[in-house]
Amino acid sequence: MNTIFSDRIADVPRSFIREILKVSLDRSVISFAGGLPNRDLFPAEEIKRATSRVFELYGNDIFQYSNSEGDLKLRQYIANRYKEKKGLEINPEHILITNGAQQGLDLIGKTLVNEGEGVIIEEPGYLGAIQAFSIFRPRFLPLAVSEDGVDLAGLKAIAASEKAKLMYTVPNFQNPSGITYSEQNRREIVDILAGKNTFLIEDDPYGELRFAGTPKTPFAALMPAQTILLGSFSKIVVPGFRVGWIVAPEHIFNKLLVAKQASDLHTCHFTQYIIHQYLLDNDIDAHIAKIVAAYGGQCRRMLACIDRYFPADVSSTRPEGGMFLWGRLPGTMTSLDLFNLAVKEKVIFVPGDPFYTTGIKSPAFRLNFSCVDETTIETGIERLGKAIRLLAK
Amino acid sequence: MNTIFSDRIADVPRSFIREILKVSLDRSVISFAGGLPNRDLFPAEEIKRATSRVFELYGNDIFQYSNSEGDLKLRQYIANRYKEKKGLEINPEHILITNGAQQGLDLIGKTLVNEGEGVIIEEPGYLGAIQAFSIFRPRFLPLAVSEDGVDLAGLKAIAASEKAKLMYTVPNFQNPSGITYSEQNRREIVDILAGKNTFLIEDDPYGELRFAGTPKTPFAALMPAQTILLGSFSKIVVPGFRVGWIVAPEHIFNKLLVAKQASDLHTCHFTQYIIHQYLLDNDIDAHIAKIVAAYGGQCRRMLACIDRYFPADVSSTRPEGGMFLWGRLPGTMTSLDLFNLAVKEKVIFVPGDPFYTTGIKSPAFRLNFSCVDETTIETGIERLGKAIRLLAK
Repeated sequence: MNTIFSDRIADVPRSFIREILKVSLDRSVISFAGGLPNRDLFPAEEIKRATSRVFELYGNDIFQYSNSEGDLKLRQYIANRYKEKKGLEINPEHILITNGAQQGLDLIGKTLVNEGEGVIIEEPGYLGAIQAFSIFRPRFLPLAVSEDGVDLAGLKAIAASEKAKLMYTVPNFQNPSGITYSEQNRREIVDILAGKNTFLIEDDPYGELRFAGTPKTPFAALMPAQTILLGSFSKIVVPGFRVGWIVAPEHIFNKLLVAKQASDLHTCHFTQYIIHQYLLDNDIDAHIAKIVAAYGGQCRRMLACIDRYFPADVSSTRPEGGMFLWGRLPGTMTSLDLFNLAVKEKVIFVPGDPFYTTGIKSPAFRLNFSCVDETTIETGIERLGKAIRLLAK
Repeated sequence: MNTIFSDRIADVPRSFIREILKVSLDRSVISFAGGLPNRDLFPAEEIKRATSRVFELYGNDIFQYSNSEGDLKLRQYIANRYKEKKGLEINPEHILITNGAQQGLDLIGKTLVNEGEGVIIEEPGYLGAIQAFSIFRPRFLPLAVSEDGVDLAGLKAIAASEKAKLMYTVPNFQNPSGITYSEQNRREIVDILAGKNTFLIEDDPYGELRFAGTPKTPFAALMPAQTILLGSFSKIVVPGFRVGWIVAPEHIFNKLLVAKQASDLHTCHFTQYIIHQYLLDNDIDAHIAKIVAAYGGQCRRMLACIDRYFPADVSSTRPEGGMFLWGRLPGTMTSLDLFNLAVKEKVIFVPGDPFYTTGIKSPAFRLNFSCVDETTIETGIERLGKAIRLLAK
């Protein structure tokens, strides 16, 4: 029956993470596999109050169809916050509200990517981006990332010989590796790309979750005419409301808007209004500080446990923020083999394989630390250490 | 700068309706141009109560990421209602919750349409479908609709000579024409398509809004293996929550789900939960009856006014439900010329042109009756009659 389907849908990798979720329903299994924010930190009471206020203030307007761009009050708030926190001058009219940043990727693919055109993708890279772009059948151009950013020699080679339409990046606390592009790495990327017909996508869902080090300059400041910036309330307020955004230069924005309209008319305004009201009535910086304190503690504990329970030749990144770190097995061990042993030890994670577009057997793996308390982290990393030793035998 | 964009985005028509919205912001203009449900009929108090109940019952779960399929309770409710109202046996596992039915079209395009493949589209047809499918660069195969359904000879010719991947239909109270496919027309369509590699999309957002005549058999009952059924809460509860659904055969469902995941992970569960709670705690049939009574009265009044104020050679459809009717000017008059005169008379509508994929100067036009009270309908149709007489001079 497969012939009935479009060629594009055959190219979309199934989410391995989705499959893993089934295993993680067993309560006795400790999961470092998720990519979820910690539900205990959701500002539930504050959102309830914001919801009541929205009902009081806006009457039936919140139930009607609305504009495709999104709520202007919320877009104004986002623009003001960029100004205040990053010194970025952004016109709220160039902010498009989307169903999470994930939909931003779909709209960018729709608007900019012809079949066979080059899309530079971090290696390892965000699985959701690989899925979203696969729909538009690009040629993926993998570019290695290491602790301080992308492989600049690799980028120069691509820029010299290939026409890359897009370069997709998660420069802060990257998913899956947890690394952050250094200031130097960013500036060299800009030197290589500026003036070329390549748009840089700066996907920044985790940027506010910094628990160590110093903030770096956004690409949107370094190269505004060529940068498409994605943001989201998923990691700092709640993910379930599906409210994210795209900031794009005006001519790109206009086409993204056409794509948004064709895709689903508009994002739910009710949840946009609630988030806006929540932001007005509460101290979001204090809330973010709480999340950062928790995730920072959990990350430090995970790193301490790795030092203690993993063999010394297993390496890991040391994130300055976000929700993930990236381990690497020595020699010829593969993370998929480790996964199968780890399940028996009642601990799971995401093997590295799905984060590559090239179908490798990866020795690396992603560990999530945002959803697990420190005591459970200790137990889980101890179990995982045991599984690694079993695999090494 | 246009060369930077994908070929597909250049194919998407701008929404003329969107442009018209700007004119309709002038309060002195009577608008029959909208496609909105009547906001005065939104069950606002009931939704507020349902929201409070959802907060009480579900705690932080409603704020977290959730599954891509949608809330199973809501899908079960939808399946039960199909059983009860239409005798349809639908497995809730084959219902995918989408951001309104509009997103269903996007996901179907992603999953089934290769560039250049044939998509049969009603002529005139729903603008949102033309936009959604245009992204996937099909070859549109226009098929005329008249009072009792599609042109069967035309469909036979397409089926004999063309490979149509999809046939898109709005068989009940069609947008824009207001017509309903007769029982006979449906059965002949099924005779022509059954066993062929063509999927029929049964887009049915208005089906419950019947104020005259008798319900017809759904394609999902006549040809379940080849039908993809779209539904929505937009016209019977509220549109702003962006909750619709697709019912599809299992192998299609599985691919649609991959496309949904790649597009935006999942539809907001919070609004799904609220709608489900609203449906549990209230008599939705009584609510629909209220809407039907109002729209029926408004439609009858509009038809009576047309008889009274329009020249006798202007024809119109006589809808049995829904939100729209379709007028037609005699001779060589075009509805775009009428629009320009009508704006000066302070009344607007949607000219027929954007509902065709073939770029014609249409003599027809769409009138919406759901959003305008009966007195205003009288005034507006009188003004429009005056504009028609001015045009005929």
